[in-house]
Amino acid sequence: MLSVEDNNMLTNTDPGTPMGELFRRYWIPALLSEELLKPDCPPIRVKLLGEELLAFRDTNGKVGLIDEYCPHRLVSLYFGRNEECGIRCVYHGWKFDVEGFCVDMPSEPPKSNFKDAVKIKSYPCEERGGIVWTYMGPPEHKPPLPEMEWAMVPESHRFVTKRSQVCNYFQALEGGIDPAHVSFLHRGDIGGIGFSEGSSKSEEYLKKDTAPVFECEETDFGVLIAAKRKIDKDQSYCRITQFLMPWYNFVPPFGDAPRGGHAFVPIDNENCYNYTFTWHATRPLTEEELEREKSGAGIHAKLIPGTSLTVQNKENDYMMDRELQASGRSYTGIIGVGIEDQAVQESGKRIIDRSKERLGSSDTAIIHTRRLLLNTCRALQNGKAPKAIQPESQRIRAVSLVVKDGDSIKEVAKDLMQVTEKDFIAP
Amino acid sequence: MLSVEDNNMLTNTDPGTPMGELFRRYWIPALLSEELLKPDCPPIRVKLLGEELLAFRDTNGKVGLIDEYCPHRLVSLYFGRNEECGIRCVYHGWKFDVEGFCVDMPSEPPKSNFKDAVKIKSYPCEERGGIVWTYMGPPEHKPPLPEMEWAMVPESHRFVTKRSQVCNYFQALEGGIDPAHVSFLHRGDIGGIGFSEGSSKSEEYLKKDTAPVFECEETDFGVLIAAKRKIDKDQSYCRITQFLMPWYNFVPPFGDAPRGGHAFVPIDNENCYNYTFTWHATRPLTEEELEREKSGAGIHAKLIPGTSLTVQNKENDYMMDRELQASGRSYTGIIGVGIEDQAVQESGKRIIDRSKERLGSSDTAIIHTRRLLLNTCRALQNGKAPKAIQPESQRIRAVSLVVKDGDSIKEVAKDLMQVTEKDFIAP
Amino acid sequence: MLSVEDNNMLTNTDPGTPMGELFRRYWIPALLSEELLKPDCPPIRVKLLGEELLAFRDTNGKVGLIDEYCPHRLVSLYFGRNEECGIRCVYHGWKFDVEGFCVDMPSEPPKSNFKDAVKIKSYPCEERGGIVWTYMGPPEHKPPLPEMEWAMVPESHRFVTKRSQVCNYFQALEGGIDPAHVSFLHRGDIGGIGFSEGSSKSEEYLKKDTAPVFECEETDFGVLIAAKRKIDKDQSYCRITQFLMPWYNFVPPFGDAPRGGHAFVPIDNENCYNYTFTWHATRPLTEEELEREKSGAGIHAKLIPGTSLTVQNKENDYMMDRELQASGRSYTGIIGVGIEDQAVQESGKRIIDRSKERLGSSDTAIIHTRRLLLNTCRALQNGKAPKAIQPESQRIRAVSLVVKDGDSIKEVAKDLMQVTEKDFIAP
Repeated sequence: MLSVEDNNMLTNTDPGTPMGELFRRYWIPALLSEELLKPDCPPIRVKLLGEELLAFRDTNGKVGLIDEYCPHRLVSLYFGRNEECGIRCVYHGWKFDVEGFCVDMPSEPPKSNFKDAVKIKSYPCEERGGIVWTYMGPPEHKPPLPEMEWAMVPESHRFVTKRSQVCNYFQALEGGIDPAHVSFLHRGDIGGIGFSEGSSKSEEYLKKDTAPVFECEETDFGVLIAAKRKIDKDQSYCRITQFLMPWYNFVPPFGDAPRGGHAFVPIDNENCYNYTFTWHATRPLTEEELEREKSGAGIHAKLIPGTSLTVQNKENDYMMDRELQASGRSYTGIIGVGIEDQAVQESGKRIIDRSKERLGSSDTAIIHTRRLLLNTCRALQNGKAPKAIQPESQRIRAVSLVVKDGDSIKEVAKDLMQVTEKDFIAP
Repeated sequence: MLSVEDNNMLTNTDPGTPMGELFRRYWIPALLSEELLKPDCPPIRVKLLGEELLAFRDTNGKVGLIDEYCPHRLVSLYFGRNEECGIRCVYHGWKFDVEGFCVDMPSEPPKSNFKDAVKIKSYPCEERGGIVWTYMGPPEHKPPLPEMEWAMVPESHRFVTKRSQVCNYFQALEGGIDPAHVSFLHRGDIGGIGFSEGSSKSEEYLKKDTAPVFECEETDFGVLIAAKRKIDKDQSYCRITQFLMPWYNFVPPFGDAPRGGHAFVPIDNENCYNYTFTWHATRPLTEEELEREKSGAGIHAKLIPGTSLTVQNKENDYMMDRELQASGRSYTGIIGVGIEDQAVQESGKRIIDRSKERLGSSDTAIIHTRRLLLNTCRALQNGKAPKAIQPESQRIRAVSLVVKDGDSIKEVAKDLMQVTEKDFIAP
Repeated sequence: MLSVEDNNMLTNTDPGTPMGELFRRYWIPALLSEELLKPDCPPIRVKLLGEELLAFRDTNGKVGLIDEYCPHRLVSLYFGRNEECGIRCVYHGWKFDVEGFCVDMPSEPPKSNFKDAVKIKSYPCEERGGIVWTYMGPPEHKPPLPEMEWAMVPESHRFVTKRSQVCNYFQALEGGIDPAHVSFLHRGDIGGIGFSEGSSKSEEYLKKDTAPVFECEETDFGVLIAAKRKIDKDQSYCRITQFLMPWYNFVPPFGDAPRGGHAFVPIDNENCYNYTFTWHATRPLTEEELEREKSGAGIHAKLIPGTSLTVQNKENDYMMDRELQASGRSYTGIIGVGIEDQAVQESGKRIIDRSKERLGSSDTAIIHTRRLLLNTCRALQNGKAPKAIQPESQRIRAVSLVVKDGDSIKEVAKDLMQVTEKDFIAP
């Protein structure tokens, strides 16, 4: 239920496109810090928003993100020598530092100053929360580094993975911010949400009322999404999640379990990275919690070692087990909450034609999110800065709680949603 | 020797194209009944005439053929739960019955009547002869179910397979209706037609005269194709085959061996299904006959288990054996009559440019068939119904017999071609 | 630093394009003689300059190069029977000889003369130097067969291989004629040029001065390329290589080692064949020299048996070893001079956009070569014959020598570059 034009605007993030320009106003997760383990280690190919780039960590430990192709004769710098504070093309020895300056050009006569005239495209990088962030927009608009809770807690409190998905970023994001699907897609005690310890109460609520009432509201961070499920005559189980500009979503924990979230970052228009965050605000993650996520039972997926490819994937129908599905112990027959999401997100066309869909009241959050992104795009074209650029608006938490009829969600959740030193234990 | 325009019309069967509309006036083989073995079994992805569909067998055993994508948010229903007379999308639980009605929408409030406004594309299905047939055309034009002989004999008398080919349906069909190639492509006692028991006489005839005289005639079923090969001064061995509208061909048996036939059904413009039928009019197939066909020695091909892909295929050059070819015991070095056909049909471009070919008198049947299809297409655009829509015109048999010079083929074959309770034993 | 238009002209060699027409004025390496080992052996698919062809050796040992597709119904002749002086289509038995005449058409009546009206596209072939050469241009312009030294020496003096590369021919050629990259890409004693016996002196020179001074000049054969590296106050080590029209390059030997050269022949615009020649002017190659080249340590690459695909390739990042690279014993971590070249040549886009590159003085040879090819193209459009069509201009050698400041390279090299009975031992 979008026009074809709006769908194009929403899904196309190549350089020079309206959405591409909007996204380039934010710090962007470019790769995991652990992918560049130590100084002068092998570089990594990175594609972001349609741009082919190369990331490397220099001798001083600083990360550079530059054009993959040497400006000289346009061969790949991937095969380059990462040494002495710069990456050196193996073809003719041209060398570039993390800022893109050509610092050596040994194929030219010593007196030549041609190297001073050559610069490679480079984007500034910073590290926080296990992520190498980059900023690909106009230098004069570069904001402070993000301060989302997951990125600010100690390393022991956090688990972050990156996987690639074979679909446009927005249909992955739509899955993330969609509170209604939880009652269906992830139902079951094998590989579904029921697998999580201490979630029995919440799961009971989720099963009981599959048609939640939604309250969505545009805020300074993006969209506040509240889904209320009746639990008795005058009370509801309320899950408050957020769409944080430009591509984040957060989900509330079950009980004292860790919190979760995602960033859906365009690789190009037909592929995206799904960064997945599991963290606890006030304590380290337990071995058991880490094992569960690494196994792919939770919102992370099991990866083919050394890659960002998932073991369960579109080629193998996510290793779906039809007998398990028929048994009812899993709604999908697919093991893993994160892979269940990926399966439906990737199962349509690479870029869904939203002029053909049929939205219901359960899609309220999605409608709000699209509208916000499209409006922000258009406003930026008229010079208006987008929201959630500044760290203060990013310090939010998803929560779930029991509310009474008549409660104002916004009022009830106001304090709980703020990141503080204490955490709120959900029902 | 077709214009580029006519070639396009002949080969393009997407929705809205002239040939696509013509084909949608016929019952179409959609899949094998055995692919949906029992009620509530896993659904099957089916692509037909460029449309991506999903087939499932409901709790009552009825087969449904619906759009692969849920109208809600356009994710694939392939991962859906097939239960209680409908398939249920795992994303939000929307459920559709075999007629395409949305029968449950648990993500919307109980009082909502949104589900009554949502219907998924669905095509009626019927089963006969081991095939699930579908009708994708205007409901008011839906004809009775086909009554070809192979579909009407008892199950014990019939063997049916389905395989996919990587070429446009029409070049596969051209191979099927081409009587001239039999003297070449399938020559040899290894893997060729000589492999069949009791065929020695016929094979001798086929080798002896490689330039048959053709008599083709447009009939009420399609095109009658007679190929006469001289066997002595005043007699000919005559093989009468048929092109039955819109994509069937039948071939006569050797002696008391089973009969054969094909349906070439477009998947999309660059792929087709080759349905292959082996049947005997008056007796069950023997173990030996079944084994031969399953092994790929005959007109069927050996399949990769659980798929419609052939073991011998374009990627592996059909496992051609050059030494066997050089020995002369096989004309091609490719084992299997059906795979020999597939090899040449797939060996050109995916869609052959018929404006560049050089047709001879041996292509008479092909020329007649193209003309009939193109004329029928144009007539349909002017409101004229196509032929062979009604069952009575489909009750035909291919035959081979010895004729005298001067015999009118049409007269001689008239009765033999009619399906009756008795069968005719070919020389 | 080419306009987009010039880049297109340079890289597009399809039939009817300016560069395609230019290249069709030369004898073209079509395949290795050894690929068609004996009379009536299996045919080989060959794609050249965008044309899909089939090569076969007939009963008399003569090689034919014809359209891959039978003109009758456009199926591939690859599956054909190569017998009795012609290749016979397995579909209907049409048979073509090496000159493209249809010599048998058994599917037509004996009295038919249709076969006389049918001819298949065919290009004349000759063999020399282990190569099957073809001429694809206007018959009236067919020149004498090439007489390059490598093609004229006895078989024992020569080693020739063919491999396919996944890039446009011109970026492979640019690598071949680029004297500057030798100081970088191939540096190192593992798998680099240092691996060659007796090359220590030259390698020392190459390392010492990485910014050679270039002297390039257009000649009757193409471009003479001289790269001078200072070795002391008033002397230089000078490597003289050639670009021989239309796609050859030659490199000088180290000491008495064999000479080397390449031909970069377009398969289509995104793929090319790299023919590599190793030969000695005056003696057979030694076992050791042959072993080294077959192993892929030198300018040839190790091939997947029975194919022209390299074991180290783009899919596996050329089996690059990052630790070896970091050790400095190899500049690239990729084993093999030839594969190092292939790696950089293939590492950019399939067709590099030369409007975006930044050329330096080290690219002088490349600039001259582009200019010559583009000018020759334009001149041919105005009816002017290209150069190096005649054998006398092809009898040239690459050399390296020590020159004094002030020496005229052209004068010094004049005699050394001529192919004579004696050879010159480089420093």
